[in-house]
Amino acid sequence: MEIKELLKKVAEGTVSVDEAVLELKKAPFEDLGFAKPDYHRTVRQGVAEVIYGAGKTPDQIEKITRSLMEHGQKTVLITRMSKEAAEYVSTKISATGQKFQYDSCSKIGIAGEIPKPDGLGKVVVATGGTSDMPVAEEAALTAQALGNEVVRIYDVGVAGLHRLLSHAEELMSAQVVIAIAGMEGALASVIGGLVDCPVIAVPTSVGYGAAFEGLSALLSMLNSCASGVSVVNIDNGFGAGYMASMINHISEKES
Amino acid sequence: MEIKELLKKVAEGTVSVDEAVLELKKAPFEDLGFAKPDYHRTVRQGVAEVIYGAGKTPDQIEKITRSLMEHGQKTVLITRMSKEAAEYVSTKISATGQKFQYDSCSKIGIAGEIPKPDGLGKVVVATGGTSDMPVAEEAALTAQALGNEVVRIYDVGVAGLHRLLSHAEELMSAQVVIAIAGMEGALASVIGGLVDCPVIAVPTSVGYGAAFEGLSALLSMLNSCASGVSVVNIDNGFGAGYMASMINHISEKES
Amino acid sequence: MEIKELLKKVAEGTVSVDEAVLELKKAPFEDLGFAKPDYHRTVRQGVAEVIYGAGKTPDQIEKITRSLMEHGQKTVLITRMSKEAAEYVSTKISATGQKFQYDSCSKIGIAGEIPKPDGLGKVVVATGGTSDMPVAEEAALTAQALGNEVVRIYDVGVAGLHRLLSHAEELMSAQVVIAIAGMEGALASVIGGLVDCPVIAVPTSVGYGAAFEGLSALLSMLNSCASGVSVVNIDNGFGAGYMASMINHISEKES
Amino acid sequence: MEIKELLKKVAEGTVSVDEAVLELKKAPFEDLGFAKPDYHRTVRQGVAEVIYGAGKTPDQIEKITRSLMEHGQKTVLITRMSKEAAEYVSTKISATGQKFQYDSCSKIGIAGEIPKPDGLGKVVVATGGTSDMPVAEEAALTAQALGNEVVRIYDVGVAGLHRLLSHAEELMSAQVVIAIAGMEGALASVIGGLVDCPVIAVPTSVGYGAAFEGLSALLSMLNSCASGVSVVNIDNGFGAGYMASMINHISEKES
Amino acid sequence: MEIKELLKKVAEGTVSVDEAVLELKKAPFEDLGFAKPDYHRTVRQGVAEVIYGAGKTPDQIEKITRSLMEHGQKTVLITRMSKEAAEYVSTKISATGQKFQYDSCSKIGIAGEIPKPDGLGKVVVATGGTSDMPVAEEAALTAQALGNEVVRIYDVGVAGLHRLLSHAEELMSAQVVIAIAGMEGALASVIGGLVDCPVIAVPTSVGYGAAFEGLSALLSMLNSCASGVSVVNIDNGFGAGYMASMINHISEKES
Amino acid sequence: MEIKELLKKVAEGTVSVDEAVLELKKAPFEDLGFAKPDYHRTVRQGVAEVIYGAGKTPDQIEKITRSLMEHGQKTVLITRMSKEAAEYVSTKISATGQKFQYDSCSKIGIAGEIPKPDGLGKVVVATGGTSDMPVAEEAALTAQALGNEVVRIYDVGVAGLHRLLSHAEELMSAQVVIAIAGMEGALASVIGGLVDCPVIAVPTSVGYGAAFEGLSALLSMLNSCASGVSVVNIDNGFGAGYMASMINHISEKES
Amino acid sequence: MEIKELLKKVAEGTVSVDEAVLELKKAPFEDLGFAKPDYHRTVRQGVAEVIYGAGKTPDQIEKITRSLMEHGQKTVLITRMSKEAAEYVSTKISATGQKFQYDSCSKIGIAGEIPKPDGLGKVVVATGGTSDMPVAEEAALTAQALGNEVVRIYDVGVAGLHRLLSHAEELMSAQVVIAIAGMEGALASVIGGLVDCPVIAVPTSVGYGAAFEGLSALLSMLNSCASGVSVVNIDNGFGAGYMASMINHISEKES
Amino acid sequence: MEIKELLKKVAEGTVSVDEAVLELKKAPFEDLGFAKPDYHRTVRQGVAEVIYGAGKTPDQIEKITRSLMEHGQKTVLITRMSKEAAEYVSTKISATGQKFQYDSCSKIGIAGEIPKPDGLGKVVVATGGTSDMPVAEEAALTAQALGNEVVRIYDVGVAGLHRLLSHAEELMSAQVVIAIAGMEGALASVIGGLVDCPVIAVPTSVGYGAAFEGLSALLSMLNSCASGVSVVNIDNGFGAGYMASMINHISEKES
Repeated sequence: MEIKELLKKVAEGTVSVDEAVLELKKAPFEDLGFAKPDYHRTVRQGVAEVIYGAGKTPDQIEKITRSLMEHGQKTVLITRMSKEAAEYVSTKISATGQKFQYDSCSKIGIAGEIPKPDGLGKVVVATGGTSDMPVAEEAALTAQALGNEVVRIYDVGVAGLHRLLSHAEELMSAQVVIAIAGMEGALASVIGGLVDCPVIAVPTSVGYGAAFEGLSALLSMLNSCASGVSVVNIDNGFGAGYMASMINHISEKES
Repeated sequence: MEIKELLKKVAEGTVSVDEAVLELKKAPFEDLGFAKPDYHRTVRQGVAEVIYGAGKTPDQIEKITRSLMEHGQKTVLITRMSKEAAEYVSTKISATGQKFQYDSCSKIGIAGEIPKPDGLGKVVVATGGTSDMPVAEEAALTAQALGNEVVRIYDVGVAGLHRLLSHAEELMSAQVVIAIAGMEGALASVIGGLVDCPVIAVPTSVGYGAAFEGLSALLSMLNSCASGVSVVNIDNGFGAGYMASMINHISEKES
Repeated sequence: MEIKELLKKVAEGTVSVDEAVLELKKAPFEDLGFAKPDYHRTVRQGVAEVIYGAGKTPDQIEKITRSLMEHGQKTVLITRMSKEAAEYVSTKISATGQKFQYDSCSKIGIAGEIPKPDGLGKVVVATGGTSDMPVAEEAALTAQALGNEVVRIYDVGVAGLHRLLSHAEELMSAQVVIAIAGMEGALASVIGGLVDCPVIAVPTSVGYGAAFEGLSALLSMLNSCASGVSVVNIDNGFGAGYMASMINHISEKES
Repeated sequence: MEIKELLKKVAEGTVSVDEAVLELKKAPFEDLGFAKPDYHRTVRQGVAEVIYGAGKTPDQIEKITRSLMEHGQKTVLITRMSKEAAEYVSTKISATGQKFQYDSCSKIGIAGEIPKPDGLGKVVVATGGTSDMPVAEEAALTAQALGNEVVRIYDVGVAGLHRLLSHAEELMSAQVVIAIAGMEGALASVIGGLVDCPVIAVPTSVGYGAAFEGLSALLSMLNSCASGVSVVNIDNGFGAGYMASMINHISEKES
Repeated sequence: MEIKELLKKVAEGTVSVDEAVLELKKAPFEDLGFAKPDYHRTVRQGVAEVIYGAGKTPDQIEKITRSLMEHGQKTVLITRMSKEAAEYVSTKISATGQKFQYDSCSKIGIAGEIPKPDGLGKVVVATGGTSDMPVAEEAALTAQALGNEVVRIYDVGVAGLHRLLSHAEELMSAQVVIAIAGMEGALASVIGGLVDCPVIAVPTSVGYGAAFEGLSALLSMLNSCASGVSVVNIDNGFGAGYMASMINHISEKES
Repeated sequence: MEIKELLKKVAEGTVSVDEAVLELKKAPFEDLGFAKPDYHRTVRQGVAEVIYGAGKTPDQIEKITRSLMEHGQKTVLITRMSKEAAEYVSTKISATGQKFQYDSCSKIGIAGEIPKPDGLGKVVVATGGTSDMPVAEEAALTAQALGNEVVRIYDVGVAGLHRLLSHAEELMSAQVVIAIAGMEGALASVIGGLVDCPVIAVPTSVGYGAAFEGLSALLSMLNSCASGVSVVNIDNGFGAGYMASMINHISEKES
Repeated sequence: MEIKELLKKVAEGTVSVDEAVLELKKAPFEDLGFAKPDYHRTVRQGVAEVIYGAGKTPDQIEKITRSLMEHGQKTVLITRMSKEAAEYVSTKISATGQKFQYDSCSKIGIAGEIPKPDGLGKVVVATGGTSDMPVAEEAALTAQALGNEVVRIYDVGVAGLHRLLSHAEELMSAQVVIAIAGMEGALASVIGGLVDCPVIAVPTSVGYGAAFEGLSALLSMLNSCASGVSVVNIDNGFGAGYMASMINHISEKES
Repeated sequence: MEIKELLKKVAEGTVSVDEAVLELKKAPFEDLGFAKPDYHRTVRQGVAEVIYGAGKTPDQIEKITRSLMEHGQKTVLITRMSKEAAEYVSTKISATGQKFQYDSCSKIGIAGEIPKPDGLGKVVVATGGTSDMPVAEEAALTAQALGNEVVRIYDVGVAGLHRLLSHAEELMSAQVVIAIAGMEGALASVIGGLVDCPVIAVPTSVGYGAAFEGLSALLSMLNSCASGVSVVNIDNGFGAGYMASMINHISEKES
């Protein structure tokens, strides 16, 4: 119920003053519009809803997933999901005739259909090495579940520049690039210098010694000498995929 | 000259094999398309070119600026420019009948016209406190010089939530928000939870003691529990403004 | 025996000089009043005594607990207690006809009765996420065992501000608030700006990557731009509960 | 105007629906009570209002100060105020017949009267060394300006335990203690073990080498083995004084 | 063979020039006196030799131990020795009719007799808490094995000052004190202020959160405001015991 | 007055009970013997008293110095003394017919006579480079003022091992060695392996880049693989000189 | 196919323009010479190819190894190889009649023949302690597999200088020295001062407490006061062996 | 005098035993060959000797320089030399008819002739930006003064890859490359992947915010994913030039 409607009813006498006060207290934020409107749009339109799987029991995940789907959600994305949870949820969801797929590399589970891409263009996910793949797949599957066409370019670390440059055309056709690397994290700068679209950099904890669990790559990416590069937390593939999808779905706002 | 054209001429005999080899060696990157195409587009279209003023002499800055303007550049943005350099450049540029303006707070100089906004929507620049203003103005003027409408919302730190929330409408009408804060850097998370557009977070070195020159705000922003937030280097207003402009100018790519 | 009494007896000749010297050497601090008077008061009044369970054997814990209860202690609080210790102590204590309860989430054990709240008002325990619950319950149960009414407001992280604001009334009715959060730790600042009572901030080690085991939240909370916020060690729920209880039990001192 | 009043007028027809919507939009937070009520109480009661002087011009400080006093504020506290600002403000304020005093050690300025102490008891401010005095005076004068009786015990570092212990009676008569120390910061733990009231610990940047600008004292205080100790930012005397005053003014809340 | 003897024999012709060159090359350092003379004295006098047990197999430890004892070593100290190694070595050593004792708390093994104390006075080993005991016993047993009388004062952390002060006489009778503490490490400063002998401070990794594996205690001890305190590595009980023994065995050198 | 004397007088009736209580309250620590007895001995024997000059005015330093000397102190050591303070104090002290000397390198001032060495042996002060000299002289002059014979071996960094080894005899004749080095701080380990006496290691802030203001040398020295090495704070020459003097003056205690 | 050849064929008409464009697109980097020429030389000459074993399955390692050997590779070096992988690969490779050896200390596997040394001189691998051996063997076996004569000098830490100096001749005959040490990492500086050839320093994570997983040794080595020392990552034996081999195989380049 | 000669003379009786002992004591290291032989070779051959100018007075520098030149040194390199020192030394040296040149960018002074290059090939010095030039010139001039042909490739940061790649031929013709960069330090990895010669990486303190005075670049370079890269201290251009020269002058050793 909108504020204006509520006030009209108060004016008409169909809602008492006390009932109106109660209503305003109970849900002041939705009414006043401070809640993320995206939430409502998402639910209405069936775009993917996200569950952070870490620290939730298989049973909890399954219940939230089913509830969401029963309320019209067509795609449910579950991140940091254990194999055990995936097996449990898979059995339960399949029994209801719905699809469920699990990627053990990225620990991503997806219930329902992966939507058709409806973004402005492609999201390119590039990694420095093969060890960065779990983070990369978290980013890629997140972006796919949120309605993006994803192009994967893996193992193109800057120490073998020719491997990266042989993908120059794919990189330059991207709407947004997610650059994922551990160790010295130089990939973000090199890609940032090659492309003319936003680059989301994801440092990974890949490496040893002075890599200090991703700190080296993180600092490196924050200090990128290329313009148009911004950074998310170490190993945060989901955050990068989400941000990339947001950018890839931008549309002109009415002023 | 395109590769294909070159090869045709080789096939036709109008270019010798040795000349072709030389040509490929001399400029392999432009020809093969690895140079940032943005560069060429920028120069052709008169969009702002950027000069990093720190460590350059007034004379060097003036020469580059004039050279760019003589080659058709309509707006030249100069960051981290000292007052001395600004005075020198101002005198010289004005003598040629061109405009020059300098903002001593952000140390931004702009030669030529600030272009009319041609982005998808508005860029909102929000700060936690008034001390964050130099960084905020660097971001705002960068965005303006790159063709964006900018809305400034300053001094809306999270400890006085009502100040921030009273700007909720402006925040929610943004195409992209730049959230700038020092100390605990919580602004990025709070804004990230309020809006449905990308948020570029800029930690500042404002604060003392355990703020550790911006480290506290930086870590805070990287760990934001809100989705759709990415981070640039401490005090990097320019980087945020550039990234925001990139996002605000996104258009569908031909596949 | 008080110093004055002792001296009187020396003056009367009922205590020899050497005996008096010995007495003063043996227990100079209790006599002179440097020992924490709270200790004596606590024992006399039956308020909860605390045992730090980590690194103690089940048998040791049980022995100390029983000894305390035999000397009149009505409530014994045991922190960081393993499940094994809890089972052992439970069996032993129950056999004596006393109550024993264990909370596996916070690893808190309580022998005897939880006292009726006798503080000035309510202690509100708020958390940013559900993963902060073990620390929150350590704080909450500590406060309860020390005689405080506790209100729990969990999972009200700043990225979903409406969730926090819908609890505004409870927050504002608190005598003291314990704000518990990991990752960017912004909760303390936001609550600090909403309420007019002291806020004890507890950073938690929840998070990954640049959260650096709680360092990010710790720095964030120390740099809070809200007045009236102070901080305890990472994951130190007990310390926050104890401090909150102290504040909630303040009474005018005779000068 | 209260929400209920507003709704009644809507029901009565004396306020139109659109006017009511506007009213709710314009000032939702005051109406809903999310603004810090302390603010209103403070203004009404003439308790000290605080201005953070760093980064404000003498003229700005003077204007805010005068405005506050004209609106009934009896005491205005200005922290981190430069000598130049103090001289300027002093001249201007004195010209209006009001008092102004400045302490160059702590850089605290106080316009108007320092209120009579109306707290529950005394606030004791203790320091490890004489070099901690600027921070200590910031804490002490803040507490005094907020209506607290303050007892100063300076230069009682733990390496000369007898100096500290000779103040045992004063320490034990405190309602709240502010323990201020640089270097190894042990003072907070030792005092925490002596007293039965809350201790606010303030690490200072006093020291050299491995003191790392206050980091050593900060970590030390966070790890205090004494219960009832919480910590504020390095050199944050104001924060400690404010927190101490809050605790010293606690009164039972109506439930 | 001494250099002078060797040269005499060269002069006498009983050693050829080439043999002498060989001799000088083979063992130039013992001859020239750069090897630690202590080594020779130790072997001759039967004072304890030390084996660092970590990373050595039970068999290796046993072989070195037996070899040392066969060459006249009366006491062999083995640090960081696993229970498995201790059992193996115990069986083997006992079979030769020699004593072997193992302390599972400190992981110290001692083969042969513990020598009678022959130092100048007593070594006092004090700890802040009971969790510091493994480090303390490493220090204490090391000192004992090297011929020192050791007094243990455990669990006298500064938060309960009366416990520490009740041992004032023992502390003040020490020739050297080893102060061992984790968390805030304040014990070293407090003891350093009480006694008039050298204090060796040992930070321990006891604690959690901002204790950062002993870093907090380490910094605290390095910044001790008491004179006469020096520090060894985190958890380095052996190093402290060795240093203390060195100091306790000092005797006037002939100039 | 001793406790026993006091009690006797109470028993005799020459001191009333209330007077005795007062006496015990007023000075409980000296009487009970918790104050550092070294203090009293020092004053009686005329050994050097120390003033920390940093943060004290020339006038304050002069007053304390003169007061000490008037009470029988033969040597007063002033550390971290500015040139200005030295000039002021020099004029004043000289006017009284006393000696005053100032070393501008170490910023050490010494009023009165430097005592004749009365330690067990020599204190050797060794440095890695010439830039470590200010710290070295602080250590050396401190030791001299406290009654030690000092041997200086400067600029014997480990990269030119022959320079160090050519001083092997002097090193090995030391009662205690102070090893001072910045950058990689390896000097402590190398000397620790050469000598059979205690080594006090002093890291200095000499170096650049990854020396991180002395952190590199500090960590290096704490991790020394040589036994018998302990460490003081970065640049703390005074602390090392004091500790060395303490060790060099050790004498058998009566048990 | 070389560019020139390709262009000639275009000129001759034996390759069409489109085929040539395709060819240039497909492999622009090899053709233009940006790929590491070393790669080609390596394959042609049968010098060791390297596989990073960590994170690869036994099956993957075996397949890559066999493929390389079938293409003429005479030596295949596998680093960070698990025992399981080694057993699997060993069985498979042996079945083809090829040699396979595995070193469980360094986790290095070598398929095929270790080539005869063909470098300019010897590579000396020196370690501070026996615990550094896994890193040292990784360096040594890498160097051997790349065609270098390796001399091992282990356990020559600087605390026992005579051990190191007794190897002076071997050290001084080296073409390049790899200095490997944990804890205080002083070995690099001491060796750097003794020899006149390049020194590659490898910090190891050996140590505890303030060694901080190799950070102490890393900083120490970066700050080496000896010239001619450069550093690789913590525990990076392979990197040091590779760099040393590169230096040991240098030959004059034609200009 | 060689040991063998000495011993022969002892055998012949022309040197007494006591004289020989004295000789061995006085200069054991030169005789035994532990002194850096490079030193002697250098002096004999007139290759550049190096003076570290920081912390030396103009007069000291001038005296050492002249002394070296009088003993046959043809080139004297002075690093970190102030402008004042340069002017003083220039006047004095010129007066003796010798050359002196000073580069104010790198603060390098060179007295005498710069020798003709006599290395195996070229040393390439590459930088990421123009701000890295002071460090780069320190490296380049050091290498030149030590007899190397130097090729400078400046401002080829990885964000503009085409600039770097357009120098591919020069890079690949290098005997050794010095890669100098601040901020994200990615240059070392990219060059390391392009060339087949050793790369010496020099992190610089260029940058701001999360560059943390060169730490970001340092970590990045240590974690380089390219083989054949080793690192020197932040801003240590001299160290890199010296190491590069050593590698460029390698010659086969006689075994």
